[in-house]
Amino acid sequence: MSEDAVGLAAVTVLAVLEQAYFSLQVIYARRKYSVSPPATTGPPEFERIFRAQANCSEYFPIFITVLWMSGLFFSQGASSVCGLLYLYGRFRYFRGYSQSAQGRLAPLYFSAQVLWVLIGFSCVGVLLAFCRVYLALDLIGRLTEALRLT
Amino acid sequence: MSEDAVGLAAVTVLAVLEQAYFSLQVIYARRKYSVSPPATTGPPEFERIFRAQANCSEYFPIFITVLWMSGLFFSQGASSVCGLLYLYGRFRYFRGYSQSAQGRLAPLYFSAQVLWVLIGFSCVGVLLAFCRVYLALDLIGRLTEALRLT
Amino acid sequence: MSEDAVGLAAVTVLAVLEQAYFSLQVIYARRKYSVSPPATTGPPEFERIFRAQANCSEYFPIFITVLWMSGLFFSQGASSVCGLLYLYGRFRYFRGYSQSAQGRLAPLYFSAQVLWVLIGFSCVGVLLAFCRVYLALDLIGRLTEALRLT
Repeated sequence: MSEDAVGLAAVTVLAVLEQAYFSLQVIYARRKYSVSPPATTGPPEFERIFRAQANCSEYFPIFITVLWMSGLFFSQGASSVCGLLYLYGRFRYFRGYSQSAQGRLAPLYFSAQVLWVLIGFSCVGVLLAFCRVYLALDLIGRLTEALRLT
Repeated sequence: MSEDAVGLAAVTVLAVLEQAYFSLQVIYARRKYSVSPPATTGPPEFERIFRAQANCSEYFPIFITVLWMSGLFFSQGASSVCGLLYLYGRFRYFRGYSQSAQGRLAPLYFSAQVLWVLIGFSCVGVLLAFCRVYLALDLIGRLTEALRLT
Repeated sequence: MSEDAVGLAAVTVLAVLEQAYFSLQVIYARRKYSVSPPATTGPPEFERIFRAQANCSEYFPIFITVLWMSGLFFSQGASSVCGLLYLYGRFRYFRGYSQSAQGRLAPLYFSAQVLWVLIGFSCVGVLLAFCRVYLALDLIGRLTEALRLT
């Protein structure tokens, strides 16, 4: 598998590095605002950074899952590009949320939209493969034929 | 890989859609009970929905991991069925927890049991594969032979 | 894939079992310190156990992701060994944090270092594969040749 999924793997490693960067920011914020673990509450500046990282962490497994489903069953190229856009959106979200609760909104919507695109790709790709394998139904072929006849 | 894991992929995509549904419910609850981020505390109705989603998110990566381990090393069919049962249990858990803290218990136990079945499948499947690959020991063959001799 | 990734699969199953053990500890702590869901705050003893489990859960998907990236693109053996060390570090972290906030530090640094090694392996492995597939550039071959010429 390793050779024909290297684009997905590259995006995945970038996603891990971004997540590591966010975790480091929380550690710095804990020091700066003197919020020692296990506390997770403190000045709003700290809480925003903490929640930004928590939100990104929460979405990380969903992102990785749809990235690979979409990449393996739909298109590696399209999925990798969406993956990069998502990571860029998350970076802007983290920066925006660190500054103000309002600042998180625009990049949050953007990254949510990219995630929906990846979910859509996964659904289409897996549905087509499912029909092919379990129902012996070639939806793409049928559709092409139907379009040719009209 | 994509063709012979399409059952697992279908359950995986369903799991992502369910998780997206839970996230949308938290967004609606934030609006309804006027709890603006980064706050995560508020009226008990909000906190139950928030915790229900947080708990499902926390288990999501574990579920996806055992689903695939069990599906690739034990049986795709059995794992996909367990996966669907788990997702159904999680749906009832989310609905139950939204209504009362008590309401979460029965479906939580159910989904935990299904998860343990998947963990059991993964352990058996990976152990058998491990013995075959690293110890050149065919446990299934040995067992069949032992039973035949008795 | 299932046969040539059985080492990674074994570490993955161990990681799931460890995570299940941590979750059970939180359930016992909720009973012991009478902290009923959805509350997540209570006596410091409870909060430390809760945060220890939350922290391990948060890192679980990142760990599984780099374990597999590193194992598939760099070396299964080296990644599996690092994976076992990480799980051992996390076990000591959970035990240490349960006793005192101070007790979490040494094993936390240890497991973070092991995670960085796995991230490094993933970066190297994926970068080499990327150069080979997309740039038709055999970095290892070039390097070996360059060393031979000097």
